[in-house]
Amino acid sequence: MNQIIPPTIPPALFAERADAIAQAAAELAASGWTPATSSNFSMRLDAEHAAITISGRDKGHLGRDDIMLVDMQGHAVGTSARPSAETELHTQIYRRWPAMNVVLHTHSRTQSVASRLFAKEGAVRLQGWELQKAIAGQTTHDSELLIPVFPNTQHMPELVAQVDAWLDAGKPLHAYLIDGHGIYTWGRDMAETRRHLEALEFLLGCELDLRRLSA
Amino acid sequence: MNQIIPPTIPPALFAERADAIAQAAAELAASGWTPATSSNFSMRLDAEHAAITISGRDKGHLGRDDIMLVDMQGHAVGTSARPSAETELHTQIYRRWPAMNVVLHTHSRTQSVASRLFAKEGAVRLQGWELQKAIAGQTTHDSELLIPVFPNTQHMPELVAQVDAWLDAGKPLHAYLIDGHGIYTWGRDMAETRRHLEALEFLLGCELDLRRLSA
Amino acid sequence: MNQIIPPTIPPALFAERADAIAQAAAELAASGWTPATSSNFSMRLDAEHAAITISGRDKGHLGRDDIMLVDMQGHAVGTSARPSAETELHTQIYRRWPAMNVVLHTHSRTQSVASRLFAKEGAVRLQGWELQKAIAGQTTHDSELLIPVFPNTQHMPELVAQVDAWLDAGKPLHAYLIDGHGIYTWGRDMAETRRHLEALEFLLGCELDLRRLSA
Amino acid sequence: MNQIIPPTIPPALFAERADAIAQAAAELAASGWTPATSSNFSMRLDAEHAAITISGRDKGHLGRDDIMLVDMQGHAVGTSARPSAETELHTQIYRRWPAMNVVLHTHSRTQSVASRLFAKEGAVRLQGWELQKAIAGQTTHDSELLIPVFPNTQHMPELVAQVDAWLDAGKPLHAYLIDGHGIYTWGRDMAETRRHLEALEFLLGCELDLRRLSA
Repeated sequence: MNQIIPPTIPPALFAERADAIAQAAAELAASGWTPATSSNFSMRLDAEHAAITISGRDKGHLGRDDIMLVDMQGHAVGTSARPSAETELHTQIYRRWPAMNVVLHTHSRTQSVASRLFAKEGAVRLQGWELQKAIAGQTTHDSELLIPVFPNTQHMPELVAQVDAWLDAGKPLHAYLIDGHGIYTWGRDMAETRRHLEALEFLLGCELDLRRLSA
Repeated sequence: MNQIIPPTIPPALFAERADAIAQAAAELAASGWTPATSSNFSMRLDAEHAAITISGRDKGHLGRDDIMLVDMQGHAVGTSARPSAETELHTQIYRRWPAMNVVLHTHSRTQSVASRLFAKEGAVRLQGWELQKAIAGQTTHDSELLIPVFPNTQHMPELVAQVDAWLDAGKPLHAYLIDGHGIYTWGRDMAETRRHLEALEFLLGCELDLRRLSA
Repeated sequence: MNQIIPPTIPPALFAERADAIAQAAAELAASGWTPATSSNFSMRLDAEHAAITISGRDKGHLGRDDIMLVDMQGHAVGTSARPSAETELHTQIYRRWPAMNVVLHTHSRTQSVASRLFAKEGAVRLQGWELQKAIAGQTTHDSELLIPVFPNTQHMPELVAQVDAWLDAGKPLHAYLIDGHGIYTWGRDMAETRRHLEALEFLLGCELDLRRLSA
Repeated sequence: MNQIIPPTIPPALFAERADAIAQAAAELAASGWTPATSSNFSMRLDAEHAAITISGRDKGHLGRDDIMLVDMQGHAVGTSARPSAETELHTQIYRRWPAMNVVLHTHSRTQSVASRLFAKEGAVRLQGWELQKAIAGQTTHDSELLIPVFPNTQHMPELVAQVDAWLDAGKPLHAYLIDGHGIYTWGRDMAETRRHLEALEFLLGCELDLRRLSA
């Protein structure tokens, strides 16, 4: 491994997080949510650093060598490897919310199709589903859960600015879609983040099914 | 394990039922019918007690420590653990029907979507499917099998009252859906209950497909 | 095993066929084509006998004890077990065509839905699919492959008479659907019959998709 | 093995490529993309030879004996086995592009249905999907990725001529569909070709979903 770990980070901590990312990635890949080397995953290490997947690797077979260190501006730390193109979207979450420790970005067919379908409306509005309660802080199926859909761009700062604008407007944010692309969600630990991702995939699938059936 | 077993219940019986629940849960989770820690499962132990899943656990990896004892009013027995929020719906079945020994509640995408789609009509009417015969007592595809859809609520006594009202009206009941939520079904043993659940998932899926195709 | 093998049949032959049925059943069950103990499978043993699945067993976990002997009129031979209710549909194929040695009946969602959708037209007409060539004797995607849909009934002789009427009219028959039920197909050996079943499931699924998309 | 390897080809190279084909085939078969013994796969060995699947074998269980040598005109070399009927479509790619070393042809339900649906328009036009970037040379979701659909025929030279006509017109080509059939795609190595195939299956599936939902 060519990753040099800064002295303030216990090597065992980096190894533990890298393994947790690799295991989650393998399970998400097996579900078909990371087609063609897409998707990226990260975990916070401390206030200044996160571990994140290196760009372009097959997400079904990650090892520790496929995970690298970045700082909270998304720059590589202690390695010449290139982090995922969308690293800034991960570190934005960590900078905004000190309590958030995991960010998962996947790319399932349901997520991609929902993002295209709801792009004009700018958001998916979820209401009436019991599984909304799987999202931290949601206590009833009766409330509205809003998942924004941001326009896609190959220029990351534009995406970062869109997320900032949403948050600066004081709107709640548990996850977001990017048009024609996939979903970003996060949580305090891997279990909560996986639960969020699994619930959102389920709810987006239900919405697509209902729309097909109500046409 | 912090579960204290009352002296009237053989410890081996509790262990056997807990293992049977865990195995069924693992198989149903593998089918994707228990997303994001949803769903709950129980088995009767005697006239006064049932074993049921503890709230919020990942249904794909249950062990004996994830199963607890409740009485037939749904109160915890011999443990400080919290049973699934919908425990009263399980014990209602056991109180109503002494012959019923297993209750399974799952939450597949098909079940959730069907519940939303048929909520206005108040029930799914199944007719003309050979697989209706998989439900105990059904002998022909020609009869009508009615699966009611009850409105969802976070207040369990309302759900219990809806089921009671249906039964008190003398209507047959093999299973029911809750709107935006999932399905409840039961049987004399685990094999029969699994057969019911599998047949109902199949039949609801067929109805959704037919509706998509007949639009 | 309570199955008594007639002296004209080598016991090893019965065991080999029973194992082949169990293996095929396990693989078809894993594909979800045998929900809730539905479906039945048979192999010819000689001009007068076939091995067939006993009624009501879980098709995902068959052993030799779940397979029994019948004669070509569908009566049990050397056992008090009850063969699948639809045994006469299997033996009809063996009586009609001495070259056919395997009959598979499955019950996938695609098969059930297609049977309901095409019941009014009385048949599914397949044309333009390269995979039609997987059916024995078909050499081009340009020809029409006709799969009749017979009305369902719980009275087997009516189903047998429908199949006889079709064949007595001189129409080609490679497989048939029963309305609200499933598919029957057959072949010279297990590999050919599995190929037929797999191709028909695929083609029926394609037809349903095309109809959804062309609406 | 009855395959005689010409002295200019290291036997270890043939074995390595045969194993790589068999492994890829097993994984693609497990995804359900090679129903009923359909599909064929090849890898270049040198400027004059390729290894390709023998006709009619079950793609889920290939061994070295199921792979044979052909020359760049699609004729068998050193064996009496018969190569896949569509061998000429593989060797056409190798002749046209010396940098291409792998050709995969699969036959998923999505590929077959998309080919029928888009046959009239002559092509599938992909635009706005982030995953277009998985195709070599594509750098943005904003460009249009054109996948032609050629009419099916049992006469291979006609198909070869259609592909030649497209290329001779100077149009870019990363993959093509054959109507009612499946997809062909290629790449510099197996990983790139698998990534192309996986991305195209995903994108075709997304297009079908969007069309269903936008009707």
